[in-house]
Amino acid sequence: MSSFGTLYRVHTYGESHCKSVGCIVDGVPPGLRLTEEDIQVQLSRRRPGQSDITTARSEFDTVHLQSGTEQGVTLGTPIGLLVHNKDQRPHDYAETDLYPRPSHADYTYLAKYGLKASSGGGRASARETIGRVAAGAIAEKYLKEAYGVEIVAFVASVGRVLLPFAKEGDDEVLGKEYLDLLTGVTRSQVDKEITRCPHRETSAKMEETIRAAKANNDSLGGTITCVIRNCPVGLGEPTFDKLEAVLAHAMLSIPSTKAFEIGSGFRGTTFPGSKHNDPFVDGVHPVTGERVLRTETNWSGGIQGGISNGEDIYFRIGFKPPATISQEQPTARYDGSSGVLAAKGRHDPCVVPRAVPIVETMAALVIMDMVLQQNARTASASLLAPVTHLPPTMVLPGKDTVTKVVNGDAQGEVVQNNKSGDE
Amino acid sequence: MSSFGTLYRVHTYGESHCKSVGCIVDGVPPGLRLTEEDIQVQLSRRRPGQSDITTARSEFDTVHLQSGTEQGVTLGTPIGLLVHNKDQRPHDYAETDLYPRPSHADYTYLAKYGLKASSGGGRASARETIGRVAAGAIAEKYLKEAYGVEIVAFVASVGRVLLPFAKEGDDEVLGKEYLDLLTGVTRSQVDKEITRCPHRETSAKMEETIRAAKANNDSLGGTITCVIRNCPVGLGEPTFDKLEAVLAHAMLSIPSTKAFEIGSGFRGTTFPGSKHNDPFVDGVHPVTGERVLRTETNWSGGIQGGISNGEDIYFRIGFKPPATISQEQPTARYDGSSGVLAAKGRHDPCVVPRAVPIVETMAALVIMDMVLQQNARTASASLLAPVTHLPPTMVLPGKDTVTKVVNGDAQGEVVQNNKSGDE
Amino acid sequence: MSSFGTLYRVHTYGESHCKSVGCIVDGVPPGLRLTEEDIQVQLSRRRPGQSDITTARSEFDTVHLQSGTEQGVTLGTPIGLLVHNKDQRPHDYAETDLYPRPSHADYTYLAKYGLKASSGGGRASARETIGRVAAGAIAEKYLKEAYGVEIVAFVASVGRVLLPFAKEGDDEVLGKEYLDLLTGVTRSQVDKEITRCPHRETSAKMEETIRAAKANNDSLGGTITCVIRNCPVGLGEPTFDKLEAVLAHAMLSIPSTKAFEIGSGFRGTTFPGSKHNDPFVDGVHPVTGERVLRTETNWSGGIQGGISNGEDIYFRIGFKPPATISQEQPTARYDGSSGVLAAKGRHDPCVVPRAVPIVETMAALVIMDMVLQQNARTASASLLAPVTHLPPTMVLPGKDTVTKVVNGDAQGEVVQNNKSGDE
Amino acid sequence: MSSFGTLYRVHTYGESHCKSVGCIVDGVPPGLRLTEEDIQVQLSRRRPGQSDITTARSEFDTVHLQSGTEQGVTLGTPIGLLVHNKDQRPHDYAETDLYPRPSHADYTYLAKYGLKASSGGGRASARETIGRVAAGAIAEKYLKEAYGVEIVAFVASVGRVLLPFAKEGDDEVLGKEYLDLLTGVTRSQVDKEITRCPHRETSAKMEETIRAAKANNDSLGGTITCVIRNCPVGLGEPTFDKLEAVLAHAMLSIPSTKAFEIGSGFRGTTFPGSKHNDPFVDGVHPVTGERVLRTETNWSGGIQGGISNGEDIYFRIGFKPPATISQEQPTARYDGSSGVLAAKGRHDPCVVPRAVPIVETMAALVIMDMVLQQNARTASASLLAPVTHLPPTMVLPGKDTVTKVVNGDAQGEVVQNNKSGDE
Repeated sequence: MSSFGTLYRVHTYGESHCKSVGCIVDGVPPGLRLTEEDIQVQLSRRRPGQSDITTARSEFDTVHLQSGTEQGVTLGTPIGLLVHNKDQRPHDYAETDLYPRPSHADYTYLAKYGLKASSGGGRASARETIGRVAAGAIAEKYLKEAYGVEIVAFVASVGRVLLPFAKEGDDEVLGKEYLDLLTGVTRSQVDKEITRCPHRETSAKMEETIRAAKANNDSLGGTITCVIRNCPVGLGEPTFDKLEAVLAHAMLSIPSTKAFEIGSGFRGTTFPGSKHNDPFVDGVHPVTGERVLRTETNWSGGIQGGISNGEDIYFRIGFKPPATISQEQPTARYDGSSGVLAAKGRHDPCVVPRAVPIVETMAALVIMDMVLQQNARTASASLLAPVTHLPPTMVLPGKDTVTKVVNGDAQGEVVQNNKSGDE
Repeated sequence: MSSFGTLYRVHTYGESHCKSVGCIVDGVPPGLRLTEEDIQVQLSRRRPGQSDITTARSEFDTVHLQSGTEQGVTLGTPIGLLVHNKDQRPHDYAETDLYPRPSHADYTYLAKYGLKASSGGGRASARETIGRVAAGAIAEKYLKEAYGVEIVAFVASVGRVLLPFAKEGDDEVLGKEYLDLLTGVTRSQVDKEITRCPHRETSAKMEETIRAAKANNDSLGGTITCVIRNCPVGLGEPTFDKLEAVLAHAMLSIPSTKAFEIGSGFRGTTFPGSKHNDPFVDGVHPVTGERVLRTETNWSGGIQGGISNGEDIYFRIGFKPPATISQEQPTARYDGSSGVLAAKGRHDPCVVPRAVPIVETMAALVIMDMVLQQNARTASASLLAPVTHLPPTMVLPGKDTVTKVVNGDAQGEVVQNNKSGDE
Repeated sequence: MSSFGTLYRVHTYGESHCKSVGCIVDGVPPGLRLTEEDIQVQLSRRRPGQSDITTARSEFDTVHLQSGTEQGVTLGTPIGLLVHNKDQRPHDYAETDLYPRPSHADYTYLAKYGLKASSGGGRASARETIGRVAAGAIAEKYLKEAYGVEIVAFVASVGRVLLPFAKEGDDEVLGKEYLDLLTGVTRSQVDKEITRCPHRETSAKMEETIRAAKANNDSLGGTITCVIRNCPVGLGEPTFDKLEAVLAHAMLSIPSTKAFEIGSGFRGTTFPGSKHNDPFVDGVHPVTGERVLRTETNWSGGIQGGISNGEDIYFRIGFKPPATISQEQPTARYDGSSGVLAAKGRHDPCVVPRAVPIVETMAALVIMDMVLQQNARTASASLLAPVTHLPPTMVLPGKDTVTKVVNGDAQGEVVQNNKSGDE
Repeated sequence: MSSFGTLYRVHTYGESHCKSVGCIVDGVPPGLRLTEEDIQVQLSRRRPGQSDITTARSEFDTVHLQSGTEQGVTLGTPIGLLVHNKDQRPHDYAETDLYPRPSHADYTYLAKYGLKASSGGGRASARETIGRVAAGAIAEKYLKEAYGVEIVAFVASVGRVLLPFAKEGDDEVLGKEYLDLLTGVTRSQVDKEITRCPHRETSAKMEETIRAAKANNDSLGGTITCVIRNCPVGLGEPTFDKLEAVLAHAMLSIPSTKAFEIGSGFRGTTFPGSKHNDPFVDGVHPVTGERVLRTETNWSGGIQGGISNGEDIYFRIGFKPPATISQEQPTARYDGSSGVLAAKGRHDPCVVPRAVPIVETMAALVIMDMVLQQNARTASASLLAPVTHLPPTMVLPGKDTVTKVVNGDAQGEVVQNNKSGDE
């Protein structure tokens, strides 16, 4: 369906040539300061025409809030919003319409629905992502204000040009240079490069390879890494909605994605447990400064048993090369006859630079929904009287009871309540 | 939550030391022949103690159907089923209980819930998977009977021992030897090897490496490939529930998983569109023999635009090395103090052989739910009168109307379909 | 949440003074002819200002389709639509803002969200119903075309002026005059009366009583009866989503509703089983003409065991008198101080005439969703091979097997059905 | 589906003659003291054979917890539980099997699924309610401990024997005697009467009328009133999941129910707004003693705009006379031929006494789920910085900001957090 989330929920509509694309966002906490500008930032990072290595189409994608806020504050009611489509003309017939584009959604949409939009596999269009980017931008705002959450994505590879993840043959799970990016990179550093790869040298090579592909009427795939910092402990709903499972779902719902890995990912499968386990150490919470358990390494990617542990959550997503290329491709027409297709029009030779804000906002949607679900649990559990008979092996050592674990002193002090949500 | 699916839905309960583990399966079509034996097969492939390279615990995991069938036929009502736990004793206190196991769910469960089962991160236990394997086994039965769907998973790597995916430096997306496995391998071939890697030579090396890890009180990760053959065209619900997105969700909800890739996956991101696109060709449907469009290559992995295209769906999942090892690990206790942990007991040195049926049944759950959703659409659309004014570019060439696309001849036969709706 | 339905799903946004109100409708079958005019009809029946006994505000409520159709045909993708609000001015401060209106949503919205729209309990506004009416109008169109479903609602009482349901003290569950209305009344008959009560004599009394209330700055409650004819057999999802349960949910989600009864309702509880049971008789299907079991009486209201039986579904809904009246009411201010409130502005003295299309379209949303769910089941079950060993007491007499029940001849034809699933 | 709830969710399985009936309860807050005895109480009030005016079958319905608790405390993980069926024999063929019982689920189950359990419309059996009663009993325990919520249901009418709701022709919406019951009646008072009508005189007449019906091989309908006291303010999710809408859904999912009314209900529709509105007064919270707005009358039934206002929530449910009677009934067989059916076996002549705990526990399921949803909102909103620019008409007078509304002082004092859930 065109809905995502349980308590924080976005519903999207729209495709390339209809009147508008937009969404309804339900479950936004009341009292959040929110203006169109907060949303516009990510829409503008997503829009086409930002540089000569993305599509030359230029659409401004101005967001229009319809409901759910007053005087710049959210009311807790659904937020309707939309972006008008510049080009609403019905698609003109073209010779290319006789062909399902190879590796595109044309054929499968037709097979699924029995008919299709004249412009092709409508909802598979990248234009559909506008709604989710907008909804995710609202989630980001809340998460930043309430918990100090930071979400930063960047391009990690384009074709065969890769960031230095690790030195080949190395005995490290991941190399220091890459880990440093995870720890420190900012959105403004990412946006300094038109490739959105924040490693100057690699970025230059990426530009070169993208320009070569473009000149060749070809396209390129790539990967994006995303890191979520200061994520509250305890997010993720066992057993089917483990945090990494829902993140994978979110990421693979982005057009053109084909792969997802959390933490050490596929590379981590080649290491023994003794090297891969993340030992615990005494530490402090990065936002609140409280003493908490931390891990020395973080090959788990901030998630253990499907639940966030407070370390940085990081993952990588693979994007295939865009299917629409203007090179000639021998392929069958809808009627089965053989032919040669050369797509017309302006297309992204490589989508990963523009996909960066989509990845970030989808991550925000997931974390936001999980925060609401976990807050429901901790707020409700905090109202129960302390249980005093449990053995210490079932509760955090040094605490006598579950409610003490959750509430501090419990009796009069549901006080630290909010902490259980944010650590 | 502990529920998965929209129309075909499984809800599971249970952990290691409670009375039983089980599930409720809702949405099973009425009239399916089903006995406990149909379910037992996959539970037995999943159970511990099958060979000396898996855990030495031996549990028979006999399934007991509680409801939803009579005389060996499903009634369409929810199927309750359970497997008794052999060992229901409360966990005895041990020195190791003072430690959250590194990279395990102990700490995160405690942080999430404020208390935890004495036996550790309860629902993160592999024992929880019994319910889903049972539910998936029922789905497999239906899919086989109704559509001839075949789902086969196999171990593709253990630690650094890999199946020959492709020759290094090769210009192929994936090599012929691997593609042949996808096309032809059977479950009985897979089960011939205790590693469940159906490539004899590789399997032998895997056994060796697992035994070495075991001897070293260490553990190993690995990957599993799964292929779904004869999958109906048109499955997957745009835009958030793309077929690959829901498959990724399902797979990353399996304990210890860290990575997922569909079709060419991460490797595919390094190829240009001109090499990666799958050209269409005139072909025949493998089950019904009808003339349909097929693709010449299948780097898409059977899914385009989030919707199945009738080609084999294949994907690969990464499993980290099991966290519980009996090697000594320096790590902090719950109270923050430093110590050294050496886990007791019998543990799987490598989970991938036993995870094979879990992967298959989770895949079956996804496909089954999507089949029901798509059947709702096509059955309902088939009752509408043909639309005759659409341009040929919006409907399958050679067909005039949507209902013709869906129903074959349509005109005189829309009537008949009516029945399925009202009786 | 602001979503309703499982497979046919509407999400709404908007309140009184925001830019627009609208919805996204997901799950519309592809290939349905649909234009804005199809939707406008019910919106216009719902809009304020239709007669002097409803509110004097006049808004035209013109619907604008945003997506999901092309050339007047649905694509199967989400339909976005909206109606601009004429009056988007922020609410001006008034003395009355110091008061929560008695029996209104002002206080509870504030308590729930911590803040509220300046115009009052925003989403509780009748204006919110525009989205659902639009979504229901689309469902009505489908149900009419695919199954010949007719949904007609009418006003059954206003204050103490009632339609003749039954003669008092009578031994009939419901009287003939009322039953005849259920069987035969049409929307055009309903619309002939400005009260929307299709019984001339009663309608005249209703008008009189409404005008008296209006003159007295007071308001009146009332009831609406709705009948669904030609509803397919087999709708309703046991056990929590029984058809009457979901209808009750839908109806009591309409603003101002306080009561729901299906079939004989509360009155039926006073009759013994021997009088209340509906005996079966041999009959014919009203649309297809097939021989089917019918019932002689229909006190069940077309639903038995939570599942439709093919007879007319009828139910009645109670609406309280509107809370906003311009009479002076002694009541506390938000700060607890006592005062006297007299609401300004134009208000409906009685909402039931305008609520008629809301009831009809909410009914359509329920039936539509249930049709899709049941079609998923029957289409999927029809692909299974016949079961031949069941005793005749478990299958319809005269039929050997379940698939025969579902498919007619079954044996050689299960094959064909396969198509709907895989193309 | 067989699932109910969003965050507090029950899934049930089982019918009359299968091995067991049971459920999985997901979303139980961790740290709740819970034993089988807590659940057994309501199961025992529900079980057959409690008096000579209910069915003579005697089943003890002992509950067996399977998972989700340890040492008498909930872990926050799903609770599996089951009750063994005493009689698991397959149904023996009987002449009566040739008949669909009038007004029973036999025919509709067969029509829906194409086949049915040999024992009749399986899931429509009252035996299915065991799972939900158990799940609701857990919810009751939590609500009582966390908020002091009291839920009491009682029989309000049997056939034509009614409690004194109001004096006929009276100008009161509801009479004092009935209102006093709502305010004060306890479960132990209800259980003193075998009819579960706590009004001695009326109860005696009910017994008499039930015995007469039983002697006549007939059955009787009736109504049940339920009151929820000390319900937190702010429950109910606009717009489709208004509190009364979800309560209606829950109640009409109970077998044999046909009608639902909240507060003044149908009777309230006959009063003008000036009489029906509930004026606000300065008051105190019944549990916390805080100063809050209360209402002078409570014809709204504790819900305004779909959201609880802190007053008692009360509603009434109509149950039809049981369909299975041993009187002879002329009716058609499945094959359409005419005949006469006289059901064998022991049946409840009137279900309302046993339905009392079902009504209470379904109410608890609804309130519990709404509490969790609202706690998610308030806990999350409480983490935002205060908004200071809103006009006083948008926030509670005397408070400057939304967070002050929610949190008291906000800065250091998320303290009153828990109150926002209960006011």
